[in-house]
Amino acid sequence: MKKALSIGVVGLGRLGSQYARYFTSRIPGASLHAVSDVQAGVAKAVAAETGAPKAYADYHDLVVDPLVDAVVVMTPTKLHGEVVIAAAKAGKAIFCEKPLTLDIREGRAMEAAVAKNKVFFQLGFMRRFDRAYAAAKRQIEDGVIGEPLVFKSTSKDQFPPPVEYLRPSNSGGLFIDMGIHDFDLARWYMGEVSSVFSVGGALAYPEIGKVGDVDNGLSTLTYASGKIGMISLSRSGIYGYGIQTEIVGTKGTLQIGYDRETAVLVMTKGVISHDTVPGFYERFEQAYISQLQDFVDNVRHDRKPPIVCQDGIAAQQIAIAATKSLHSGRAEAVKA
Amino acid sequence: MKKALSIGVVGLGRLGSQYARYFTSRIPGASLHAVSDVQAGVAKAVAAETGAPKAYADYHDLVVDPLVDAVVVMTPTKLHGEVVIAAAKAGKAIFCEKPLTLDIREGRAMEAAVAKNKVFFQLGFMRRFDRAYAAAKRQIEDGVIGEPLVFKSTSKDQFPPPVEYLRPSNSGGLFIDMGIHDFDLARWYMGEVSSVFSVGGALAYPEIGKVGDVDNGLSTLTYASGKIGMISLSRSGIYGYGIQTEIVGTKGTLQIGYDRETAVLVMTKGVISHDTVPGFYERFEQAYISQLQDFVDNVRHDRKPPIVCQDGIAAQQIAIAATKSLHSGRAEAVKA
Amino acid sequence: MKKALSIGVVGLGRLGSQYARYFTSRIPGASLHAVSDVQAGVAKAVAAETGAPKAYADYHDLVVDPLVDAVVVMTPTKLHGEVVIAAAKAGKAIFCEKPLTLDIREGRAMEAAVAKNKVFFQLGFMRRFDRAYAAAKRQIEDGVIGEPLVFKSTSKDQFPPPVEYLRPSNSGGLFIDMGIHDFDLARWYMGEVSSVFSVGGALAYPEIGKVGDVDNGLSTLTYASGKIGMISLSRSGIYGYGIQTEIVGTKGTLQIGYDRETAVLVMTKGVISHDTVPGFYERFEQAYISQLQDFVDNVRHDRKPPIVCQDGIAAQQIAIAATKSLHSGRAEAVKA
Amino acid sequence: MKKALSIGVVGLGRLGSQYARYFTSRIPGASLHAVSDVQAGVAKAVAAETGAPKAYADYHDLVVDPLVDAVVVMTPTKLHGEVVIAAAKAGKAIFCEKPLTLDIREGRAMEAAVAKNKVFFQLGFMRRFDRAYAAAKRQIEDGVIGEPLVFKSTSKDQFPPPVEYLRPSNSGGLFIDMGIHDFDLARWYMGEVSSVFSVGGALAYPEIGKVGDVDNGLSTLTYASGKIGMISLSRSGIYGYGIQTEIVGTKGTLQIGYDRETAVLVMTKGVISHDTVPGFYERFEQAYISQLQDFVDNVRHDRKPPIVCQDGIAAQQIAIAATKSLHSGRAEAVKA
Repeated sequence: MKKALSIGVVGLGRLGSQYARYFTSRIPGASLHAVSDVQAGVAKAVAAETGAPKAYADYHDLVVDPLVDAVVVMTPTKLHGEVVIAAAKAGKAIFCEKPLTLDIREGRAMEAAVAKNKVFFQLGFMRRFDRAYAAAKRQIEDGVIGEPLVFKSTSKDQFPPPVEYLRPSNSGGLFIDMGIHDFDLARWYMGEVSSVFSVGGALAYPEIGKVGDVDNGLSTLTYASGKIGMISLSRSGIYGYGIQTEIVGTKGTLQIGYDRETAVLVMTKGVISHDTVPGFYERFEQAYISQLQDFVDNVRHDRKPPIVCQDGIAAQQIAIAATKSLHSGRAEAVKA
Repeated sequence: MKKALSIGVVGLGRLGSQYARYFTSRIPGASLHAVSDVQAGVAKAVAAETGAPKAYADYHDLVVDPLVDAVVVMTPTKLHGEVVIAAAKAGKAIFCEKPLTLDIREGRAMEAAVAKNKVFFQLGFMRRFDRAYAAAKRQIEDGVIGEPLVFKSTSKDQFPPPVEYLRPSNSGGLFIDMGIHDFDLARWYMGEVSSVFSVGGALAYPEIGKVGDVDNGLSTLTYASGKIGMISLSRSGIYGYGIQTEIVGTKGTLQIGYDRETAVLVMTKGVISHDTVPGFYERFEQAYISQLQDFVDNVRHDRKPPIVCQDGIAAQQIAIAATKSLHSGRAEAVKA
Repeated sequence: MKKALSIGVVGLGRLGSQYARYFTSRIPGASLHAVSDVQAGVAKAVAAETGAPKAYADYHDLVVDPLVDAVVVMTPTKLHGEVVIAAAKAGKAIFCEKPLTLDIREGRAMEAAVAKNKVFFQLGFMRRFDRAYAAAKRQIEDGVIGEPLVFKSTSKDQFPPPVEYLRPSNSGGLFIDMGIHDFDLARWYMGEVSSVFSVGGALAYPEIGKVGDVDNGLSTLTYASGKIGMISLSRSGIYGYGIQTEIVGTKGTLQIGYDRETAVLVMTKGVISHDTVPGFYERFEQAYISQLQDFVDNVRHDRKPPIVCQDGIAAQQIAIAATKSLHSGRAEAVKA
Repeated sequence: MKKALSIGVVGLGRLGSQYARYFTSRIPGASLHAVSDVQAGVAKAVAAETGAPKAYADYHDLVVDPLVDAVVVMTPTKLHGEVVIAAAKAGKAIFCEKPLTLDIREGRAMEAAVAKNKVFFQLGFMRRFDRAYAAAKRQIEDGVIGEPLVFKSTSKDQFPPPVEYLRPSNSGGLFIDMGIHDFDLARWYMGEVSSVFSVGGALAYPEIGKVGDVDNGLSTLTYASGKIGMISLSRSGIYGYGIQTEIVGTKGTLQIGYDRETAVLVMTKGVISHDTVPGFYERFEQAYISQLQDFVDNVRHDRKPPIVCQDGIAAQQIAIAATKSLHSGRAEAVKA
């Protein structure tokens, strides 16, 4: 039997810690060897919980640990570049959480480091691994809706993250922070986007406006092929976490997504109701696990990564153009 | 162009008055000539509203009015027999609202009068004319679900009628008053029922128990063919008027019915809700009109009636057996 | 009892003929006195079918008929102006089908003629009378979703009209011909739109591109209030007629619309399916009738019209800006 | 930190092997120490896959292994008795898969052995741990539907198991083999059932009739309280695995269950469709894991088991009465 892939997870925030747990228990073919976090106590606690033999405070130590085969980069986005480049230099296989980077130049440097060091690199866009999104992709490839023509995608968060997080210098702003998933899907299903136009406003939460971001935004997309698309983003979903995508083709339409968490209908006087999906963990747990499994399988079986630096850069370029358009009031070309 | 069918409506309760209006405005090929009600004032008011030239207090006068081609019998059930027989003797085409009769002997007499006088007779079972129920019938005939094997039907009223109405000597009891529709569907979709077993109770409304009826009941059906079925009846639907039928076949299943009246989803913090169907008018208006149209078309074009006395008698026999079973605690044979 | 409103219908295309039938049978308080169509044979046939006493080939004759109280204008759009103005001069109450006009200057002239002659004028936008759209309006007014912030509306036709009809010189192009309904809803629910940006293409039907129109289009809206919106239009709905609107507010979201015509689920090996809504008659029959009833009631009871020339002009101005944007590639201001 | 519960799994069929995997990876607080199967090769393979230190061919060896804290009994039903009694004598905590036994006398012996040896015993009825079924239980306890009055539950398998398995001497027949879950829910939500009446037939698969079983069956239930219920069972679900329950109360109704596996709607010319739930693994994986977690937590934290021998016996008594009724054609009392 092929040796398990020995994993080191860098960055143990909420999702990083969860990934550490998944590697321990949910990903056949992987074993968790090390975790690291700038807060040494967090690293130790996660190591204790997961049974990871090593806990580092400095990711450099994890990256060069000879018993680590693959580095999973879960740090804040602004550190993605240095960790990925260090891991590439150390010759490790790399999984990097989205977004690749807020800085395209840095993204190119990451891409170059991966290429130069001939290491395996896979970027995380978990929605592509969601059962429903993946099924839709197969159905399109199977010709179920003919040629796809119009892409529409909506993301709603139930409530906004802390305002401090939303400061565009940190998050990149709504179109980058939330929209990156939708822009990736836009490319994945229908090809390259050439220009984008956005509108938006701090309509529900004035405090979000004060830090320079918007809480609701809409972008239209024009594809290089002439096809069109639309992205709708909201920090004021209120009812729940709502992720829906529609693709209109020459022979039919696909609608992806759902808004009910628990399969119970409550039927009282004049009203039928059900609950909602609370957040991304509940909605995308299967997708998170599947993408990690895919990463592990790809490394172990010498398969090509399905999502590479260029995918992160290209989605980011759309998001950057969308953000630029919001401020310029003009359609903005998406840089290649 | 063929002459319009001249209609006389006997019995102007809520549904009778509504039918009078339908004949005036919704049924091409029909014209409303006369209405009658024991309350002469009601007859006059409906005549005034609908423009019917004649208003009678005594149905005998309507039945012999030479300008009436067809008599529509909407009286309380216990009068169905005498009105139908009088209309048959007068040589009129007849539409009689369900149930045909609570008294099988009377039903046979009606059938005989129709046969002897060679008049057209059509019984009302509006569900058969509901777009969804009719579509399901066609799909079964088209073989979409193969051979139908199991019939299941549920009827819920939002709240019970007045207790006085429910007295079994008046209404016949739950299995007759509410179940007659489901028993008719049971036959229509899958053939003759040979025995029935029922349970029930005055579970929600003790006052219903006091007059000798139940407010919730369940029957299992055994068909002559060996197939099986189930009927579920509730006076305590509470949330709304819920009519659903399922037919399980060798190649698939059909589910008929719906529980939302208005196409709006209200999505607030953690809850998604919609309204419910309030009652039978809202749910079956299209079916009421379609069955009257069908009656008029059948008479005018010398077509056979799709629902005859025997259908009313057969459904009633099942309902009677179901009621008997409720009291005997045994499966009861359905009389042919 | 108040005298019935005597109606004359001008223009007997598919919808005009249907309205004539509705006035005969479905609109209490109205009576159909006259119909007119440039094809005299059509006018005669509709008069014969509906029993309208008068059939005119020239609308001028209908408009001055002293027995006509109210003129219902159902001609091709380019004739709306002259018929409305003639009817206003004749002192008649007027119902005019949407769009008011393709020519804003003409719209102003119509508005002036109505004002000068002090006649009642109501514009048709039937979606406002759809049970679901009307319920959503009430729910917003009741504060169910707090302050509405984002408007999104989608219209899909199952297949395009004849190419000749689509020539923009005739139809006005996609954003005017199809979008006018969505632009009206955009205003009705959330106020005045100040600018619009559009993308689109002849993606499914190249022949539509050859006559200068697009078959799929998307517009983003910016409201004077800073709120935002989105319109999505498709001539290649394929699966059916799909009309959906979503309104995101500070306390929740409303979703309006449905995609199933008949309440039957067909469940076969691995697949559950249902039918679709075929077209606007099926989807909006109740709304068409309700808006005519509302018109008749408003005239008879001296109520103000809920939709006036300015509503038609304002929706048209958005549609014009949307069309202009499609060609300019820039956001276009909506003229007041 | 509390020591992990050391688990031994006896019986490594499809579900037993899956449970072994769950204990390795999905159940915090548990560690898999041993597995056993009469096929020694299967035990070794599962041990190798899961990393369980011990693989036994004879369950007696597993049961007395001093490093095993808890025995999970996953053998064919007819062996449940002897394994549970052996485990009880060995002083182990016990989880036993449903059905407890086909033989009530044996069930009493198991209950006695558990009591005498003062061991922890929990019976598996995974539906109670399904998120939706559990939510419905809480909602009922919270009074959301008032007093529950009518219980209705439907189970459909997509296709029947091998005929050999269905031989009633092996499976107990439809009402025991499939119905046991529904009968347990009937008790859990609404209390003790006093009598049951069944109909059924080998309607879809004559070969099932030849071995003495039926493929479709319906039971009505009468509760000791006078409430009523209904169970519908089908081996010919065809479209998929369909598990639905409805509870009608004095203030409303709950409907539990769903029929779509993947959140994609496919919308093509005139048809909207989605996939179905293929089987019990897909439908109830979360429930299987949650019930094992609950077992482990209960043992470790000295909590009472939520489901005991008597629950298995009581559900079995209803199922036995349902089966007896099928043959007698009479309502049968449920033995206490």
